[in-house]
Amino acid sequence: MPVAEVARRMLDTYPREFSLDRDLLVRCIEACSDCAESCTQCADDCLGEEMVQDLTTCIRLCLDCSDVCTTTGRVVSRRTGFDPAVTAAVLTACIAACGRCAAECEIHAAHGMEHCRVCATECRSCEQACQDLLAAI
Amino acid sequence: MPVAEVARRMLDTYPREFSLDRDLLVRCIEACSDCAESCTQCADDCLGEEMVQDLTTCIRLCLDCSDVCTTTGRVVSRRTGFDPAVTAAVLTACIAACGRCAAECEIHAAHGMEHCRVCATECRSCEQACQDLLAAI
Amino acid sequence: MPVAEVARRMLDTYPREFSLDRDLLVRCIEACSDCAESCTQCADDCLGEEMVQDLTTCIRLCLDCSDVCTTTGRVVSRRTGFDPAVTAAVLTACIAACGRCAAECEIHAAHGMEHCRVCATECRSCEQACQDLLAAI
Amino acid sequence: MPVAEVARRMLDTYPREFSLDRDLLVRCIEACSDCAESCTQCADDCLGEEMVQDLTTCIRLCLDCSDVCTTTGRVVSRRTGFDPAVTAAVLTACIAACGRCAAECEIHAAHGMEHCRVCATECRSCEQACQDLLAAI
Repeated sequence: MPVAEVARRMLDTYPREFSLDRDLLVRCIEACSDCAESCTQCADDCLGEEMVQDLTTCIRLCLDCSDVCTTTGRVVSRRTGFDPAVTAAVLTACIAACGRCAAECEIHAAHGMEHCRVCATECRSCEQACQDLLAAI
Repeated sequence: MPVAEVARRMLDTYPREFSLDRDLLVRCIEACSDCAESCTQCADDCLGEEMVQDLTTCIRLCLDCSDVCTTTGRVVSRRTGFDPAVTAAVLTACIAACGRCAAECEIHAAHGMEHCRVCATECRSCEQACQDLLAAI
Repeated sequence: MPVAEVARRMLDTYPREFSLDRDLLVRCIEACSDCAESCTQCADDCLGEEMVQDLTTCIRLCLDCSDVCTTTGRVVSRRTGFDPAVTAAVLTACIAACGRCAAECEIHAAHGMEHCRVCATECRSCEQACQDLLAAI
Repeated sequence: MPVAEVARRMLDTYPREFSLDRDLLVRCIEACSDCAESCTQCADDCLGEEMVQDLTTCIRLCLDCSDVCTTTGRVVSRRTGFDPAVTAAVLTACIAACGRCAAECEIHAAHGMEHCRVCATECRSCEQACQDLLAAI
């Protein structure tokens, strides 16, 4: 089942009210999940390339981005005791990590690295989803 | 985009051969992602219930299961330097965590906890996806 | 062995030069490790209290803080392909999470919750260590 | 402060009884924390080496081991709703990940990679601490 559907079903059963826009929240959870996965795999794909020496910055930024997206997805998924300032700071960090990782992947995508092209798209989607949720807090 | 589609596109661009069945692998990655999300939310939903005192074992098992699923999804996503013994041990731990969390959630689902019902289903799906991948290693 | 000693030994064997102050970096890594641990345990200690109903905001903030500290410790530990903007954004998120979790724990510490008192101290230490490293970037 | 001291102080304030040996538990928590840190840094140190092409298996096993140790440290830190079967399965996975990562790092340590030498020691310590705690469950 898509993570978005899991997230939506779980939010529908949440026992309290919550004020955040449900669609923006589901979109952000899904984007964080997608981007964490694409970054984990892109780092590993880079390790599998013959020219791994040229991809070390990309690997590092993918590892950072995967960690930050995983944490962001968890923080935004929690509704009880919601804190706007912490959530905003974490979304801001995720926007930075996704934007920087996307920019690096786009360089390698332009030189024919297909996994970097797919990963850059996921990073840009996650950057946007975090910006949209941040604007709604 | 569903995580399964992200995982599939990234696997399609992997620069080396790999021997694991692609469909089982994608299914396991998606199930780990889904189950990590449902467990993070179920723990939080339980915290939001008036009868949280009766749900502390469920919260704890959901926290464990979310952590184990996140780690398992990462380990199976990495193809370079694949190690069957480590992967098998991690899948075995995930099967244990999912099975135990499902059993606990099923108890509360039978008493009308809807988030536990949804979460139990995801835990059982992930338990099965990990068993299927483990059988193929 | 203390994590600080492990971090120092590993930094001493790093094959390239790096510009960040080594003592501030080791201190931040140790503080993130300590705070992740105290928050994981404080959330669990709160779950073990009879009055868990009054501690749900504390549990949630501890879970967030543990996740953010774990990710921050990983990001600052990586030297290859270092990116100041991503690191600064992650440290800023960690300062927010630690400060908010400390403030909540301090309320419960004032009412005799000993685990909240210990945890608040670790959160304040980590908040400070992240501020010091951020100032040095 | 050493993580072991943080863990001990937090366990001392746990509001319920628990049956596991406190010293073995503290030792395991500290070892997981140390090993997660050394593996995160060893993966990064390997990325910084000129001969990174020869270290891709080491990087991958370090990434796996860091993830597994982080999750294991969290699972054993939680006392409420303790489940012996889940804990045993997670410790078994950690023993496998640490043992395999140690063996790989020892190969590179024998060829002069100092970070692999330090990391192998931490992996062996963590493997032992997990075995000791597993034997006590």
